[in-house]
Amino acid sequence: MTKMHNYSAGPCILPQEVLKKAGEAIINFNGLNLSLLEISHRSKDYVEVMNKARSLVKEVLNVPDGYQIVYLGGGASLGFLISAMNFLKVGGKGAYINTGTWASKAIKEAQLIGDVEVIANSKEDNFNYIPKSYHVPEDADYLHYTSNNTIFGTQFKSIPETDKMLICDMSSDIFSKPIDVSKFDLIYAGAQKNLGPAGSTLYIVKEESLGLTGRDIPSMLNLQTHIAKDSMFNTPPVFPIYVNMLTLEWLKNLGGVEKMSQLNRAKADLLYSEIDRNPLFKGFANIEDRSDMNVTFNLSDNSNKERFDQLWKNANINGLKGHRSVGGYRASIYNALPIESVQVLVDVMKQLEQ
Amino acid sequence: MTKMHNYSAGPCILPQEVLKKAGEAIINFNGLNLSLLEISHRSKDYVEVMNKARSLVKEVLNVPDGYQIVYLGGGASLGFLISAMNFLKVGGKGAYINTGTWASKAIKEAQLIGDVEVIANSKEDNFNYIPKSYHVPEDADYLHYTSNNTIFGTQFKSIPETDKMLICDMSSDIFSKPIDVSKFDLIYAGAQKNLGPAGSTLYIVKEESLGLTGRDIPSMLNLQTHIAKDSMFNTPPVFPIYVNMLTLEWLKNLGGVEKMSQLNRAKADLLYSEIDRNPLFKGFANIEDRSDMNVTFNLSDNSNKERFDQLWKNANINGLKGHRSVGGYRASIYNALPIESVQVLVDVMKQLEQ
Repeated sequence: MTKMHNYSAGPCILPQEVLKKAGEAIINFNGLNLSLLEISHRSKDYVEVMNKARSLVKEVLNVPDGYQIVYLGGGASLGFLISAMNFLKVGGKGAYINTGTWASKAIKEAQLIGDVEVIANSKEDNFNYIPKSYHVPEDADYLHYTSNNTIFGTQFKSIPETDKMLICDMSSDIFSKPIDVSKFDLIYAGAQKNLGPAGSTLYIVKEESLGLTGRDIPSMLNLQTHIAKDSMFNTPPVFPIYVNMLTLEWLKNLGGVEKMSQLNRAKADLLYSEIDRNPLFKGFANIEDRSDMNVTFNLSDNSNKERFDQLWKNANINGLKGHRSVGGYRASIYNALPIESVQVLVDVMKQLEQ
Repeated sequence: MTKMHNYSAGPCILPQEVLKKAGEAIINFNGLNLSLLEISHRSKDYVEVMNKARSLVKEVLNVPDGYQIVYLGGGASLGFLISAMNFLKVGGKGAYINTGTWASKAIKEAQLIGDVEVIANSKEDNFNYIPKSYHVPEDADYLHYTSNNTIFGTQFKSIPETDKMLICDMSSDIFSKPIDVSKFDLIYAGAQKNLGPAGSTLYIVKEESLGLTGRDIPSMLNLQTHIAKDSMFNTPPVFPIYVNMLTLEWLKNLGGVEKMSQLNRAKADLLYSEIDRNPLFKGFANIEDRSDMNVTFNLSDNSNKERFDQLWKNANINGLKGHRSVGGYRASIYNALPIESVQVLVDVMKQLEQ
């Protein structure tokens, strides 16, 4: 099988050993002579998967006591609604930082639930930077932000300071580096970047921050429902959660998020250095806000497009096309992408120059 | 690999050839040298999967024009909320038939959205029958029922007559037999029975029946959102939907729902005949309401329990334990379970008698 260099923005590259184990479990799981797909989610074997997937999140991210781990379906898009439903008080207000498409969608969903104030917004510059100065209103219940903006290639380099509750959509950079979970009341993340395949969404929630809205929340949208049932209120997305578990095992064995952070830094440095050095390319995002996960760039001269596209396709590179909102190119260099693949892209960029 | 006879109630047995193809796609999908799990859901290859999964539903169930097919996450449990959100008018009323645990949960979620009237209820007999006489109130927006009750082993043998809109949770018997889709405004079904693995939920919806509630519906809960985006409003549960597609191909090649209905009838007849013949066993559900999907039964004399349990486990039977609400045994004989497996169970029942 030809080795591909997979720069897809998500669903994205996963570790080869994870894919191998996942494929095997489809045929014969745990030596049961049954597929993982055809056993009860209440069976001993699957309950162990769910418990391990949840405890590995705590271990790998060093989650403090008082936090609960829940896996649901629906992606971050349902998380936009669930976060507002569970944290925006009746008659209260949510404060949002708008740094791109996903933040805008989070704002739109919260507006259906209650009062929303957008306290900072980089839309006027097509979201190519992270706003640094903002004021969280005194009457806000929480501050919501998107830690990494997949489409625009920007990333918060520090956690916003606030004395309000703090909620973060961390879909596209969770598990890429250490984070201080104790600063958050809710972290949610669609799995299909560093964690696993599409179909499951992770919630890390401070339990004492729940139940304060004065709102009757439908069962499936109520994080307390899922916590009370150990993330098994109803049939969970069995296979995606299993792959999450495998990916977290891989990450732990590799050295955890500290080690991963070093590897990701090295990959990002290699690629951004070439973008800055090579006169044929220019970066999209403000330099100080550049994402370590999604590297957005353009050709300086668009007449090179056909040749560049041919070169990277010939090098077995996949998924480099930029999002339509930005154009150009986007190299998503998530955890599972090896630095060797980044070197292949950098070599292609040098080749274009020659 | 030892062949197991898998009677799990769901997630449940899937066709062997489907599992084989699914396992292969985890490693190398469509000859792309990439896993199905690591390609973009917007890629040509995956868009084809989604379109095929949707069009096969139409083909296999002979869905009339004017209906749309959507795949979401969240299971039927989210469907309870989505159905009420999209059909229960502001100031209106939903009529519900309560035939068990899942119907009760649907009622509970709808009560958060508006006025609900339970027009028939078999709870006083631990849901061992399907109510036949009920009146749908003139001011009801719709009638909601659960076509098959997995836990109690009862099944509607005909579609309820009403001039109101009709909504059905068909999670556990969809694709087991032909249905007249034109009688319904919404059919929804968690996939993890006859359709595929856990993690996706199918909605078959009459488009002209939507948008009539006078309610602002959050994006992810609004069926119109998903229809407008061809079931790709956000990243769908990629792998579960792929397995749905494979299962529908298998079903179509086998002869469709007409053929499947004959096979299921034969399996149910074989097992119910033995339950009725063998003095050591008694059925749980009322005879006329017996499910062709979930066969619930008890031992006449519980002192045989240890021996019976040993016998079926020795015969490589899996998942026969009844739900705690009913006790005894439950043999789920979904589409993918071959009649040979039913014969093995019947032989074990005869063996116990000797």
